[in-house]
Amino acid sequence: MSGTPRRPGRRPGSADTRGEILTAARRVFAEKGFDKATVRGIAREAQVDPALVHHYFDTKEGMFAAAMQLPITPQEVIPLLLEGPRTEIGERLVGMILRVTASAETRDPMVALIRSAMTNEQVAAMFREFISNALLYQVADRLQVPHLRVEAGFAQMFGVLMARYVLKLEPMASASHEELVKLLGPTLQRYFTGDDPN
Amino acid sequence: MSGTPRRPGRRPGSADTRGEILTAARRVFAEKGFDKATVRGIAREAQVDPALVHHYFDTKEGMFAAAMQLPITPQEVIPLLLEGPRTEIGERLVGMILRVTASAETRDPMVALIRSAMTNEQVAAMFREFISNALLYQVADRLQVPHLRVEAGFAQMFGVLMARYVLKLEPMASASHEELVKLLGPTLQRYFTGDDPN
Repeated sequence: MSGTPRRPGRRPGSADTRGEILTAARRVFAEKGFDKATVRGIAREAQVDPALVHHYFDTKEGMFAAAMQLPITPQEVIPLLLEGPRTEIGERLVGMILRVTASAETRDPMVALIRSAMTNEQVAAMFREFISNALLYQVADRLQVPHLRVEAGFAQMFGVLMARYVLKLEPMASASHEELVKLLGPTLQRYFTGDDPN
Repeated sequence: MSGTPRRPGRRPGSADTRGEILTAARRVFAEKGFDKATVRGIAREAQVDPALVHHYFDTKEGMFAAAMQLPITPQEVIPLLLEGPRTEIGERLVGMILRVTASAETRDPMVALIRSAMTNEQVAAMFREFISNALLYQVADRLQVPHLRVEAGFAQMFGVLMARYVLKLEPMASASHEELVKLLGPTLQRYFTGDDPN
């Protein structure tokens, strides 16, 4: 497998190669969980050179996001959060989550992943490791906020997305982004900047 | 079916009768949803007199809670919420939800219902109607809080229970009630008493 393509699209079958890597990645992530899966192991499963995997995906996190068709990677979220004034981080985060989940096309794969995590312990473990290690702990450590507070914010937005898109509770399901940012922004702001010791 | 027993336990088979009513209730709730299900329809399905259903269950809400093995009925929750100072309603509500869900025995049937609501649209509709009409709207109207704000509080606690007991995110899963009340109480307090127009 040496001489792997450097430019996708130039070599016939390279689109398939990417797809085969993602299929292998889904299998390996499901089996090993997020933490124990390795680029090398995924390359072996896909029967390609690890360099080819790196060619398509910069990081394991990016590969997980692509394999699960997540609309956004942790590497994209974290800089957005850190950009702009800290005093508006709550509103910024709520707005971003609502925008990213606004279209069914980007939302459905995420909801599908959450559904399987709710009913399958193996998927739950994989999702837990990804959410904790690749997302929440990174955000917490970059912002120097205790993990529990970041998880409280995650829980708020997780609940809102479930109430809005899965349970379809009204008026939550029809509320505008603006209303929700106003209502939920201060909650996340307090978790991320509140100065009580929790 | 006239001459139905007034005192359960006195007539052989009355324990079964209650069980049969609940089985019928589960069937009717699943089929019709919470709103359209009637005590009369459930009695018909169970082939018993409606008076017998009323003998075992005061209300449709109580019957739903029993059928789904929910640990607490809306009729029990609402007075507890209204009792005591309004300025502590957030902490009171968080504490109550954590206590009621603390043991696997009371929690598991609720988690099972949520799991099926997440994956089955018929169960989702039933759950939505019950949660909205029997619980959230009642609380909102009794406390004169906009429905959206009560749903934001529901979403926060729904997310916390899912993160704690289904996804088992750490440190959320191991956090003490005291820590969580301190962290989440002010969020619910703001939703229930905040004076911004949402």
